[in-house]
Amino acid sequence: MSDRLTIIKVGGNVVEEEASLKSLLKDFSRVAGSKILVHGGGKSANILSEKLGLESKKVDGRRITDAETLKVVTMVYAGLVNKSIVAGLQALGNNAIGLTGSDLDLIRAAKRPVGEIDYGYVGDIKSVNYQSLKELLDSGAVPVLAPITHDGHGQLLNTNADTIASEVAAAMCFDYEVRLIFCFEKNGVLMNEDDEKSLVNEINPELFAQLKHDGIVSGGMIPKLSDGFAALRRGVKEVVITNPAGISEGLRGTRLVLE
Amino acid sequence: MSDRLTIIKVGGNVVEEEASLKSLLKDFSRVAGSKILVHGGGKSANILSEKLGLESKKVDGRRITDAETLKVVTMVYAGLVNKSIVAGLQALGNNAIGLTGSDLDLIRAAKRPVGEIDYGYVGDIKSVNYQSLKELLDSGAVPVLAPITHDGHGQLLNTNADTIASEVAAAMCFDYEVRLIFCFEKNGVLMNEDDEKSLVNEINPELFAQLKHDGIVSGGMIPKLSDGFAALRRGVKEVVITNPAGISEGLRGTRLVLE
Repeated sequence: MSDRLTIIKVGGNVVEEEASLKSLLKDFSRVAGSKILVHGGGKSANILSEKLGLESKKVDGRRITDAETLKVVTMVYAGLVNKSIVAGLQALGNNAIGLTGSDLDLIRAAKRPVGEIDYGYVGDIKSVNYQSLKELLDSGAVPVLAPITHDGHGQLLNTNADTIASEVAAAMCFDYEVRLIFCFEKNGVLMNEDDEKSLVNEINPELFAQLKHDGIVSGGMIPKLSDGFAALRRGVKEVVITNPAGISEGLRGTRLVLE
Repeated sequence: MSDRLTIIKVGGNVVEEEASLKSLLKDFSRVAGSKILVHGGGKSANILSEKLGLESKKVDGRRITDAETLKVVTMVYAGLVNKSIVAGLQALGNNAIGLTGSDLDLIRAAKRPVGEIDYGYVGDIKSVNYQSLKELLDSGAVPVLAPITHDGHGQLLNTNADTIASEVAAAMCFDYEVRLIFCFEKNGVLMNEDDEKSLVNEINPELFAQLKHDGIVSGGMIPKLSDGFAALRRGVKEVVITNPAGISEGLRGTRLVLE
């Protein structure tokens, strides 16, 4: 039987508040076996941009990463957020190592082609360096991945953290029994977003299409679920969307299934 | 015979300008064998602090690192500067990995005790994780170290890059023949700081004391030389102070010797 690998993705809002970050790191530090934490950056990048007087450009709700914004997200995601998590995990006895896709060439991406929209310095993932990640895990290290990649020609790129989590999960299937957990503020997919008890326990692509059609699933949840189903199709054993407390409580939340 | 390890420390000013950074990375990428790059942060941290309206507090020319300044240096050093170097080295075929002292618990420090001056979140190095650095080097990785450490209890700390370079050099002597190169804007120690030709080819502790007494060696050069002599006493084979071009030109510059 292959080793088990747990990949947990946490959203920006969870890592930004000291109390929720502390509680998340405590829960994460107790996860046994090989594990990887993937984090977003969230509001602190926006706040820094605002303080610096940079205009936040969005098209269809997606942020445009111009050269100055790339500097800001590299500072916030790869610097402040990543190293705060690493220091916190080290204090809890986890041998964390904070990395971007440029480190050890772990995640190579290509700048998104300019079509109707020019997203700027946004990277679409081309390859995950499975071997180097495995060597780190074998040595007992706990990789903490920031949502920054590179193109191999010296250019850093802003890359969606959900996508990093699902691409890394799919790449690691080769040698591990992988479970992928998306943590965010809510209990999971909710039938009514104001009612945490309206949790959808299980979702398949058919129900996903239905809920999307009905407007019950919208916004950032759509790419998260798409990424999750893609990971399942590529061999990831288990995909769950939950809130941070869900990590320690037997993985309650919304479980993704293919049928 | 032990393997050779080259540790190069580059100052903030060198890494901040795109042209000088590019040229440095080119020279560094050609250094054969195991190597480590240690970088400072320099002016960009000050510039960001100013933009954010933070007051830069200095006592005796040394910056005080309050909580907000620590955030800024973590963003600039561990984020922007570190990852720009890593992406640049990857493009040149060096398998760079950017790290702080918190990653893999590489460099543990203690917050400097408050005496006459409270330096704030500044760390004095307590230990270097020799084994983990060696494993990275053995795997062919090129560590790029940012001047941020941690205390093992979750606190990141600002730590002088010259000191990191010399402490890492001394720690690695156990298994490597280490040479330590401090790169900065000038050709080396100069008898007249406005004349690059007035280079001191070799300096020993006696001459150091004399030049310090005469005011020829001053400012940041004093701790740099002290760190260099300390490294030699702890078994580092060679310590040279030079400008970046010196890396590729047979290590011309000022050579430190003990006698």
